[in-house]
Amino acid sequence: MTLPKGIDWLPQRRVLKLLDQRRLPDQIKFIECARVVDVENAIIDMVVRGAPAIGVTAAYGLALAANIDRDSPLEETHARVRSAASRLRETRPTAVNLMWAIDEVLRRLEASSPDQTSRVVDTLIEIAGALANEDVAINKGIASAAMEIVPASVTFLHHCNTGSIATIDYGTAMGVIRTAHEHGKNVHVFVDETRPRLQGARLTAWELDQLGISYEIIVDGASGHVMKTKHVDMCVVGCDRVAANGDVANKIGTYNLAIAARFHNVPFYVAAPTTSIDMQCPGGTSIEIEERSIEELTMIDDHRVAVIGARAFNPAFDITPAELVTGIITELGIVYPPYKEGLAKLF
Amino acid sequence: MTLPKGIDWLPQRRVLKLLDQRRLPDQIKFIECARVVDVENAIIDMVVRGAPAIGVTAAYGLALAANIDRDSPLEETHARVRSAASRLRETRPTAVNLMWAIDEVLRRLEASSPDQTSRVVDTLIEIAGALANEDVAINKGIASAAMEIVPASVTFLHHCNTGSIATIDYGTAMGVIRTAHEHGKNVHVFVDETRPRLQGARLTAWELDQLGISYEIIVDGASGHVMKTKHVDMCVVGCDRVAANGDVANKIGTYNLAIAARFHNVPFYVAAPTTSIDMQCPGGTSIEIEERSIEELTMIDDHRVAVIGARAFNPAFDITPAELVTGIITELGIVYPPYKEGLAKLF
Repeated sequence: MTLPKGIDWLPQRRVLKLLDQRRLPDQIKFIECARVVDVENAIIDMVVRGAPAIGVTAAYGLALAANIDRDSPLEETHARVRSAASRLRETRPTAVNLMWAIDEVLRRLEASSPDQTSRVVDTLIEIAGALANEDVAINKGIASAAMEIVPASVTFLHHCNTGSIATIDYGTAMGVIRTAHEHGKNVHVFVDETRPRLQGARLTAWELDQLGISYEIIVDGASGHVMKTKHVDMCVVGCDRVAANGDVANKIGTYNLAIAARFHNVPFYVAAPTTSIDMQCPGGTSIEIEERSIEELTMIDDHRVAVIGARAFNPAFDITPAELVTGIITELGIVYPPYKEGLAKLF
Repeated sequence: MTLPKGIDWLPQRRVLKLLDQRRLPDQIKFIECARVVDVENAIIDMVVRGAPAIGVTAAYGLALAANIDRDSPLEETHARVRSAASRLRETRPTAVNLMWAIDEVLRRLEASSPDQTSRVVDTLIEIAGALANEDVAINKGIASAAMEIVPASVTFLHHCNTGSIATIDYGTAMGVIRTAHEHGKNVHVFVDETRPRLQGARLTAWELDQLGISYEIIVDGASGHVMKTKHVDMCVVGCDRVAANGDVANKIGTYNLAIAARFHNVPFYVAAPTTSIDMQCPGGTSIEIEERSIEELTMIDDHRVAVIGARAFNPAFDITPAELVTGIITELGIVYPPYKEGLAKLF
């Protein structure tokens, strides 16, 4: 197991070290963030991605906002943290973990009410570290809950990247796959390459490779063909937000996969930490879908693949309606339809 | 209208000039084929692609096989043509136009029975030229037949590339789109980028751009999201082979698109010259699906996007079952279910 750490706090230097996910798997490079603006840019530019990873990164961003002037009056420090919080919220509008993590940091900070700026900084660092540890425990809880539905010999179809670098360490949907493998099950994974950013081909295949788990990358458009001509036991995906009615916002392409799964009667599971469930959000139509730059389609890295001036539509996420979701796997157990009741019971 | 010719026979030099589709839209480069082996490689390497274009290219390949030795005895020339025919058939196993074009050339050659090698060469060149002209007429027939189902304001969703360089000049599914535009209809096209080879982003977007037709490229996985959140009047795709029961072999991703269309009640049409309809083939399960190299997924041009040694599954085509096809648009009119009867009537 040689996967590098995606998010690493360097306590001596008070710097957040992020694995640059955009360069994987070719290059293992890191970016150091000493200021909150570095953290904002890292999230916007997708140096760090994956809903749980973004949440913890933002938490450290708040610590960096406080840390920038350790001699400032307490009131001024709090204002700086609040201002950083609102800017960080705007970096990626769809993922709810980000909002949850920021709320949670502010709530815990208020509860501990440190009496001077240097103590605020230390408290924020402690809170961010606690969130990171809790995330690993949550992921292991999801994986453990899932084992009851995973047969001894299993072929998964997986979308995007939900592994150790999308989270703090273990992974959500990928955690389910890893745990099945660690439990000695006979695992094969079809890996949706996940256009436009190719998180499946770049990251998931790389992680599976490192973990010694059998896999094949496929283009996203081949999932129906694979379900029809090969055997697939279940689709398992992560999520950026689950609404109170069970609608799921996740990486673009998830909805098409869920439709293909329904057409072939393949179970479709969503791995969701309870921190990704937004009980304030009644349904998928209330979720803002981030649109990203068209260069994500017309360029691959620095390489142009469409005519200069080409037009494109690039929604980063889509909504899979609850009716297409077989079950939502949380660290507290698997929730089945009807979701409104099942999800409410978790909280 | 500045689209270069995809296939151009140079009569003085007896050379077939092919637009190198792999370099589009960045570079307009041509490859000259003086020998049949050059033609074989051009088809295998996808210098030329698109079922109708491949058929005519192979026809010229047979002329080049005869032309290589204009002094050889007649018997030897025929043997050379027959041997070239069997090698050309193996270049792409799924497209039936290729098989049809080779059969048609051999049939017409036999009918005209030229009495010396130089006359064989001239006859083969004439036959290939005739097939090219007939292809343009067929495409215009398809487009004309389609106009009855295309509303005055129309949003198409299109997969792969079916335009003037996939055919001899006008296009199959793209011919429908062009004709709608030329008839003054208000046309918008969502262009599936079509992984792995990105024919949509590279070629279709480029052709639409040149033709002044409004479009947006989308990732293949976004088609369901687009159908749900935008308005799509119809999907229109080409095909590599239609079986006697109406099952359609076409570029990988077509089947997922058809499933998404059915889920959203969006009509799904296949533009098919009758030369793509294989009445000898009872259904999709009888169609051989070409698997191509995994580097089509793990590399984009010379640029690696997956870990070295990554495993992948890369079927070039898939089968869309007849039940998902609203209608098959041929140059003889639109065929609706039940296809077995409707297609049989065409022949």
